[in-house]
Amino acid sequence: MQAKSGVIVVLSGPSGSGKSSLINKIEDKLDHYYISISTTTRPVRGQEVNGEDYFFVSKEEFLQDIKDNYFLEHAVVHGNYYGTSLRPIQTALKEGRLVLFDIDVQGHAAIRDKFPDIITSIFITTPSLAELKHRLSGRATETKDIMQERLSIAKKELSHIKEYDYVLVNDDFEQTVNALLDIIQAAKLKKSAVEIDDFVSKWLQN
Amino acid sequence: MQAKSGVIVVLSGPSGSGKSSLINKIEDKLDHYYISISTTTRPVRGQEVNGEDYFFVSKEEFLQDIKDNYFLEHAVVHGNYYGTSLRPIQTALKEGRLVLFDIDVQGHAAIRDKFPDIITSIFITTPSLAELKHRLSGRATETKDIMQERLSIAKKELSHIKEYDYVLVNDDFEQTVNALLDIIQAAKLKKSAVEIDDFVSKWLQN
Repeated sequence: MQAKSGVIVVLSGPSGSGKSSLINKIEDKLDHYYISISTTTRPVRGQEVNGEDYFFVSKEEFLQDIKDNYFLEHAVVHGNYYGTSLRPIQTALKEGRLVLFDIDVQGHAAIRDKFPDIITSIFITTPSLAELKHRLSGRATETKDIMQERLSIAKKELSHIKEYDYVLVNDDFEQTVNALLDIIQAAKLKKSAVEIDDFVSKWLQN
Repeated sequence: MQAKSGVIVVLSGPSGSGKSSLINKIEDKLDHYYISISTTTRPVRGQEVNGEDYFFVSKEEFLQDIKDNYFLEHAVVHGNYYGTSLRPIQTALKEGRLVLFDIDVQGHAAIRDKFPDIITSIFITTPSLAELKHRLSGRATETKDIMQERLSIAKKELSHIKEYDYVLVNDDFEQTVNALLDIIQAAKLKKSAVEIDDFVSKWLQN
């Protein structure tokens, strides 16, 4: 079989599902991975670092990349462009890396469409809407309006849950971490269509 | 979430791929599982045990079960009926068991069709056709004709390899055992469409 190409793991789930904490926790246990970073035209805020939090680019660059089909998906939010550039993903896949996405349901659909054979996707959720409310209201930063918006987005996201390979109910954090690591172990064993074609043609000849 | 329903793991691969040895090896590490057994109308041979090697039934019983839609798939080989009865599978799934199938590519297609949401499938193969020949010729029981037939079936099966979720090249036995166990760990985390529907409707209410 040819040099192993990388695989993709997508994590989605409402704000408050614990997705970010889970990703932080599992990062220590992974090697040879790349966490996909979004590209945006919005200004840098506070301590944000280019290439860590986002790739910060000008509107001109962003529009040129759209033209060149470099975006897997993009959207405009409050006048700012946000998108997922294909370039770093393709580089990471060629290097045989595990590419991890923290992305919404639309992003998941776009990635599945582009990489159907090497994707494993996981939807992370709280055990209940009440628990989501509880977790969000524990955040000092959330105003009532933002919380209402988050809850409404969460309900919409839940309606896409069946598009995912796995659903993890993040009730017990350690248990969810272990489940996530099990899924990633298996995900790494996926082979791309190109790898399989190559394998079969060599298999028949030898 | 409602009581966990079972999940399905399908193993396919040519005779000589090492599939049976792999299943024997992993059986010790599994619990709460059921290995699907075929039903047949052919006479019992040698030491075969009803309910272990096959479910042995009369032609009349078999035909009645076909009529009652109790077969997931069936075929006639040399005048004998062979099939996969749905009854023990549905019982095992209700008990929340891992249901393991050692079945050919047609059987896999039928199972995927019937249980699309809870299936994880794995195709096991030798590294090459030459290695398959080598392994088959090491078996004292194989005549030249049977070996030719096995190789020809193997080539046909390989053409279905992309229908599987995972392809495992059984080069190093221990490594393949570990990969198989990783995939099964993840497979056990799958949820049925019914479970997910139930979860979402409860999620929204609580």
